[in-house]
Amino acid sequence: MTEHTADYVEGMVADRRRLHRRPEEGWLEFETTYFIAERLRSLGFEVRLGTDVICPEAVMGRDPAAVEKAMERARAAGVPQDFLDETKGFTGCAGILSTGRPGPVTALRFDIDCLPIAETDDPDHEPNREHYASEVPGLSHACGHDGHTAVGLGTARWASENADRLTGTVKLLFQPAEEGVRGAAAMAASGIVDDVDWFAGAHVGCGAAPGQVGVSHEGYLATTKFDLEYFGTPCAAGSPENGHSALMCACATVMTLGSLPGHSKGITRVQIGRIVSGTGRNIVAGHAFLALEVRGETTEINDYMAKNVETTVKGMAAAYEVDYRLTRMGEAVTYKGDEEAVELVKDAARHAEGVTSVVDMNAKVGSEDCTMLIRRIQAHGGKCAFFYFGCRHHGHHKPDFDIQDRTTLPVGWGVFTGFIERTNGRKA
Amino acid sequence: MTEHTADYVEGMVADRRRLHRRPEEGWLEFETTYFIAERLRSLGFEVRLGTDVICPEAVMGRDPAAVEKAMERARAAGVPQDFLDETKGFTGCAGILSTGRPGPVTALRFDIDCLPIAETDDPDHEPNREHYASEVPGLSHACGHDGHTAVGLGTARWASENADRLTGTVKLLFQPAEEGVRGAAAMAASGIVDDVDWFAGAHVGCGAAPGQVGVSHEGYLATTKFDLEYFGTPCAAGSPENGHSALMCACATVMTLGSLPGHSKGITRVQIGRIVSGTGRNIVAGHAFLALEVRGETTEINDYMAKNVETTVKGMAAAYEVDYRLTRMGEAVTYKGDEEAVELVKDAARHAEGVTSVVDMNAKVGSEDCTMLIRRIQAHGGKCAFFYFGCRHHGHHKPDFDIQDRTTLPVGWGVFTGFIERTNGRKA
Amino acid sequence: MTEHTADYVEGMVADRRRLHRRPEEGWLEFETTYFIAERLRSLGFEVRLGTDVICPEAVMGRDPAAVEKAMERARAAGVPQDFLDETKGFTGCAGILSTGRPGPVTALRFDIDCLPIAETDDPDHEPNREHYASEVPGLSHACGHDGHTAVGLGTARWASENADRLTGTVKLLFQPAEEGVRGAAAMAASGIVDDVDWFAGAHVGCGAAPGQVGVSHEGYLATTKFDLEYFGTPCAAGSPENGHSALMCACATVMTLGSLPGHSKGITRVQIGRIVSGTGRNIVAGHAFLALEVRGETTEINDYMAKNVETTVKGMAAAYEVDYRLTRMGEAVTYKGDEEAVELVKDAARHAEGVTSVVDMNAKVGSEDCTMLIRRIQAHGGKCAFFYFGCRHHGHHKPDFDIQDRTTLPVGWGVFTGFIERTNGRKA
Amino acid sequence: MTEHTADYVEGMVADRRRLHRRPEEGWLEFETTYFIAERLRSLGFEVRLGTDVICPEAVMGRDPAAVEKAMERARAAGVPQDFLDETKGFTGCAGILSTGRPGPVTALRFDIDCLPIAETDDPDHEPNREHYASEVPGLSHACGHDGHTAVGLGTARWASENADRLTGTVKLLFQPAEEGVRGAAAMAASGIVDDVDWFAGAHVGCGAAPGQVGVSHEGYLATTKFDLEYFGTPCAAGSPENGHSALMCACATVMTLGSLPGHSKGITRVQIGRIVSGTGRNIVAGHAFLALEVRGETTEINDYMAKNVETTVKGMAAAYEVDYRLTRMGEAVTYKGDEEAVELVKDAARHAEGVTSVVDMNAKVGSEDCTMLIRRIQAHGGKCAFFYFGCRHHGHHKPDFDIQDRTTLPVGWGVFTGFIERTNGRKA
Repeated sequence: MTEHTADYVEGMVADRRRLHRRPEEGWLEFETTYFIAERLRSLGFEVRLGTDVICPEAVMGRDPAAVEKAMERARAAGVPQDFLDETKGFTGCAGILSTGRPGPVTALRFDIDCLPIAETDDPDHEPNREHYASEVPGLSHACGHDGHTAVGLGTARWASENADRLTGTVKLLFQPAEEGVRGAAAMAASGIVDDVDWFAGAHVGCGAAPGQVGVSHEGYLATTKFDLEYFGTPCAAGSPENGHSALMCACATVMTLGSLPGHSKGITRVQIGRIVSGTGRNIVAGHAFLALEVRGETTEINDYMAKNVETTVKGMAAAYEVDYRLTRMGEAVTYKGDEEAVELVKDAARHAEGVTSVVDMNAKVGSEDCTMLIRRIQAHGGKCAFFYFGCRHHGHHKPDFDIQDRTTLPVGWGVFTGFIERTNGRKA
Repeated sequence: MTEHTADYVEGMVADRRRLHRRPEEGWLEFETTYFIAERLRSLGFEVRLGTDVICPEAVMGRDPAAVEKAMERARAAGVPQDFLDETKGFTGCAGILSTGRPGPVTALRFDIDCLPIAETDDPDHEPNREHYASEVPGLSHACGHDGHTAVGLGTARWASENADRLTGTVKLLFQPAEEGVRGAAAMAASGIVDDVDWFAGAHVGCGAAPGQVGVSHEGYLATTKFDLEYFGTPCAAGSPENGHSALMCACATVMTLGSLPGHSKGITRVQIGRIVSGTGRNIVAGHAFLALEVRGETTEINDYMAKNVETTVKGMAAAYEVDYRLTRMGEAVTYKGDEEAVELVKDAARHAEGVTSVVDMNAKVGSEDCTMLIRRIQAHGGKCAFFYFGCRHHGHHKPDFDIQDRTTLPVGWGVFTGFIERTNGRKA
Repeated sequence: MTEHTADYVEGMVADRRRLHRRPEEGWLEFETTYFIAERLRSLGFEVRLGTDVICPEAVMGRDPAAVEKAMERARAAGVPQDFLDETKGFTGCAGILSTGRPGPVTALRFDIDCLPIAETDDPDHEPNREHYASEVPGLSHACGHDGHTAVGLGTARWASENADRLTGTVKLLFQPAEEGVRGAAAMAASGIVDDVDWFAGAHVGCGAAPGQVGVSHEGYLATTKFDLEYFGTPCAAGSPENGHSALMCACATVMTLGSLPGHSKGITRVQIGRIVSGTGRNIVAGHAFLALEVRGETTEINDYMAKNVETTVKGMAAAYEVDYRLTRMGEAVTYKGDEEAVELVKDAARHAEGVTSVVDMNAKVGSEDCTMLIRRIQAHGGKCAFFYFGCRHHGHHKPDFDIQDRTTLPVGWGVFTGFIERTNGRKA
Repeated sequence: MTEHTADYVEGMVADRRRLHRRPEEGWLEFETTYFIAERLRSLGFEVRLGTDVICPEAVMGRDPAAVEKAMERARAAGVPQDFLDETKGFTGCAGILSTGRPGPVTALRFDIDCLPIAETDDPDHEPNREHYASEVPGLSHACGHDGHTAVGLGTARWASENADRLTGTVKLLFQPAEEGVRGAAAMAASGIVDDVDWFAGAHVGCGAAPGQVGVSHEGYLATTKFDLEYFGTPCAAGSPENGHSALMCACATVMTLGSLPGHSKGITRVQIGRIVSGTGRNIVAGHAFLALEVRGETTEINDYMAKNVETTVKGMAAAYEVDYRLTRMGEAVTYKGDEEAVELVKDAARHAEGVTSVVDMNAKVGSEDCTMLIRRIQAHGGKCAFFYFGCRHHGHHKPDFDIQDRTTLPVGWGVFTGFIERTNGRKA
């Protein structure tokens, strides 16, 4: 590692640990957004915030009351009121570096939110050993988005320091609320990526080994996340004719959704993850809540499943004489990379420091809302790719998830900066 | 027994055995109706037939194709075409005997249909021993309506022979399709009982012992019978997205109907007795059939249940994107006798030949569509009663049901004729 | 009202308001029990506590952790450690007054627990207007057991002051945990009522008007309360083959329990009041909780329903490959009074001060665990009765439930003391 | 086409039309088997019949009563009793031609059963136009197995006439009961293919165009077919406590089976195609029948699904207190060809007369029980391939399915005989 590179690494590690201490859940990343925006501005980026990068109408899974509290919390933690006003309550930002020279627009995406998972207190867990564990009870960066953000900031610094060698525009997207696949749709709908020619996104870990870069050609299941509420008529159990049980409707709905037909074109999934209904044992339940999701091997199949959910819920509510509210809480589509972009990523990976192997790696399961940005970019003719940079871990979304930042972050950073070199580098 | 009475008994026994040999199911009683009508006319009764006694719009559970075949069968058995024309395809009749003297209108009701139950071939079964068993495979009078009809004809003869001693009008109703509680609603809707002042109905057997008359003050569950069909979209199982399974909708409906809420005011019942859906194992089913019924301790409760069925079915069809047809196949309400009429029945029973005991007997379960006639009569101010005349049996609707006609029929006949004496007898 | 009586009334009103301020839920009534026991001892009663009146093996619906916290809270509120030790953690007590003269054992029962219902803050609500509203957030005596307890203490004073005029033994049962019909079974199982010859219990309000005493001959539905837990195998939704969903099992169970067959002998009920299952949307749920109850018009019918619950749950757990825990949380049977005792209550009511009418009043719905004590007493040959003393209210278990103590309590007290006079009064 | 080939074609067309007239369902193909066996013997083949080719213990979906009737029918149609005795009631046969020269054992498989689908009466349908339509009401060769059989007999003739040019052994398998994937498992279990070195199977039509040969490398879903019966306790609906409803259990089972979890490794399917339960509307159903199937993208996934069916059914029966019988009615696994064999098929296809194109064609849906034979052969080290030879049609299992025999059969025959030339041809 060159001394210069080592300096980048130290910077990214420090940033990542700073972020790791202050995890924030999706749509609530005000401290994180402030930290990113300040840095980008200090590096000469133009920063776009709030409704410039988030289309409010397309926002899913955002709780205004929780946002209020998060803004208060951020204020208490030193985020200036002016900045909070700029966000208009919407987290995330885009940093734009224009070289002034003709050339393509290249966008990279880094997601910034954490998970509602308490970090392990195992003293061997590196964040504990090196004293940068989450300070927030019940929250942690158990999916590595702290690392993503740090790589994004490292890439920003590189672009800033190498602007003379570049043409066109570099656009760094710091996306909120990837968990639950909530944030990307609103960022895409804002139009912020409509001028993008080249795009790359990435995830740390997944199936990639330490030092390995997995280049993805296609994959992910399309998915739609729903919250469902039924509003019945509560009554004393002794006079059941006075009520309409939201609980019975919810359970019947679970059975019907669970048995939705599949699709000849590929995998389908329905998963009901949570149900809460009723108060006392002898009260006919007036309210029921369900959290569920559908997935499909293609976007078309997922749309079919989502439509079936809507039809089912409407019919069941009528059958049980209850009202309902069915809310889309998140959405992602499938990924199909553009070979030109994928090849550039692969080439960048082959030449990046710290990379020990480059392989093809197509995720057949799981979902990633980066696909919502990619779909928008491809619709405008942009070329997109996605890759993985590996680390050693026992599973994402686990209390002991860790990424070995000092060796892992440089790999991601190496690929992203190499990608920019290849798309926007000045020809000699 | 006087010689004169003995002659009545012989006549009723002969008639009952004649009818027992030729059982006919509900709405198909053309031979039976012809037999009754001929007799009534020979006794000087005015006979009303077809749509004069049956309101077609109120008919439930009648299959036109089966009626066609029954009429053919009746024709082959010697029923004249003219008579069949008179019926307009609707069985049952009313015999009216007007004394010409002012006085009340008294109606009695006798139901005439059989059951789709094959009679036992046990040689000890009296109809076998005495050679008058059912000649029709699969059908028999396993509920004793042959006895009811014979008692009705015996009562007709008595009224005819005693017309000089009577005032007002005697109206004998021979009602089709009591099984499945189908026929009474249409007879009531015809208006044939709208002028009735006094009314009595009866059933042989039930909980009454031989020689015993049970006088009923109230009872029966109200009930509605439904046939339900779902019409989905069949398709090959390999491409389930092309279909909508009527089978899945039917099974989900069963679970929802089965778990309909009860009612604080009394007993409710839902019973799904039959389901048939689907063709091949690997074909998504395009059609489903269900036969079901609801009951309630009061008519109001039954209406609540029936409405819930309708709401449920409509909603489930929407949830599963199938069409449906929900048809009322039968209906009965609860019974609440008028004490004036009940007392007359009780008094008649106390004085009838062959009666060994008279008790109060209120049926808490089961349903009887005589209640539909009673409701109509009471709505016009008439006074109604219902009673049981006992026999020895091992259960109604069993292949070996029998009524010991020679001793049982005179009891029913005695009460009915005694009732007329008390309502329409000329004062000395 | 005599001056003497007025003094009793003032005492009961003061006691009731004291208790009203400090409501305690079932099995947690340590302050209440201490208050009662101290008073009984001061009046010369022998007091039985803890496992002398509660059989631990028969206890239902008691959470040891909540008991621990309640004992701490009681300690903080001034209940001596010695007393808490005496209770062995079980609330409730019996006060025994032996006259030393031969005579019957007469027991009266007063239930003492409150409800988890926040009292209204309506300034017109009497406890607010007169400043004795519940001091405990979320808890209140919304079912009038504070009044029951006060009447019990007034009756204790009366018995103590009139001991010379009595024979035999007076046994006052202050029963914990009536809500959820939890406490009586354990009190019955302790044997404390096995020598009882005469018994009376009562409830304030219900269908009785102010000044009215409703004397009950029979009634109440038998009931069993269940908590049900399923323990599945959680897993990521992407690999459903690794898990067994407790949520799916719970919902299927709801549909099957909801559709349990009824019973020809009378009303049945199944009510699932609460379901909670699952964590995240994309996690197959490892745990599910359900709160449910069954009822039957007779104890036999209720037993049939409870057995069906057990069979169903066991089978469903097997079908879904999950473990389960089904716990009886409460139980009550039906009530059939002994006419000798009912007549004594009626006679006492007719002669009690403040009673404006005495009527027969048989509850057809609802459940009351006093029936568990009555069943035990009747099994040993004792004679039992139950009555209501009315008040003006808008529904039990409502935030604004109130009893107008000054006029209502004397009625209950008058009947209870009159009952003792009739069973244990010395003949002149 | 050479004159010699033309003679083969005429023979196959005549055979196919002969077979088309007399369609026989699976396990009932006695006339067909006799026709094949006679021919094979006339061509010098050793013929194996009955339990030599069918392992009775492994037979699925065979109704002994239907077999009895089919043997009677065959007898009436001229099949000698001696032959029927040889079959021991099991249809299908193997023809073995041993060249006497060392060399591989090569097996080809032809399925022989028809479908319960009435042939169209459209006069333009070729079998109608040329007067060889099915003579059996309700049955027809709507899946082209008549063509398969004819190709098998043509191949037998070719092998017989070219025996001098061959080494080793040619084994022609005429398999019964492919519809419902019933027959192959029992043929495999008989051991008849345990010495096979090379194997090819084929299907007419599917996705292949006329003149096209589709060579398959992998595909088909694994599947298990089940019949399920529940045996409850019937009773009158008025006394539901006396019964246990098989209908309710069946419907609950449908909901649970319908909502079985999927599998991360690939597609799963559950399909309930038929349900029949109950007799009368007011009778609690004592019996229920369900026909269902599961499928999986791999054999492992299908086994997982089939095991889940077994667990579910056992648990549901316990929950509803009914007995059950779950019977495997058919089974097929997935197909993974051996490239050596697939290449030989491809090469044969490229050189066959009448073939206009050769393509790779891997079926992602549907099931084929040839896979059961292939699995057995591969387990013993044999090399297997499967291919399609196209025709013009509007869908298999349709009343108007047709294969244009004169041009289609030569293609299949050309590939099969070419395959034998390549595996068993004498080197010059």
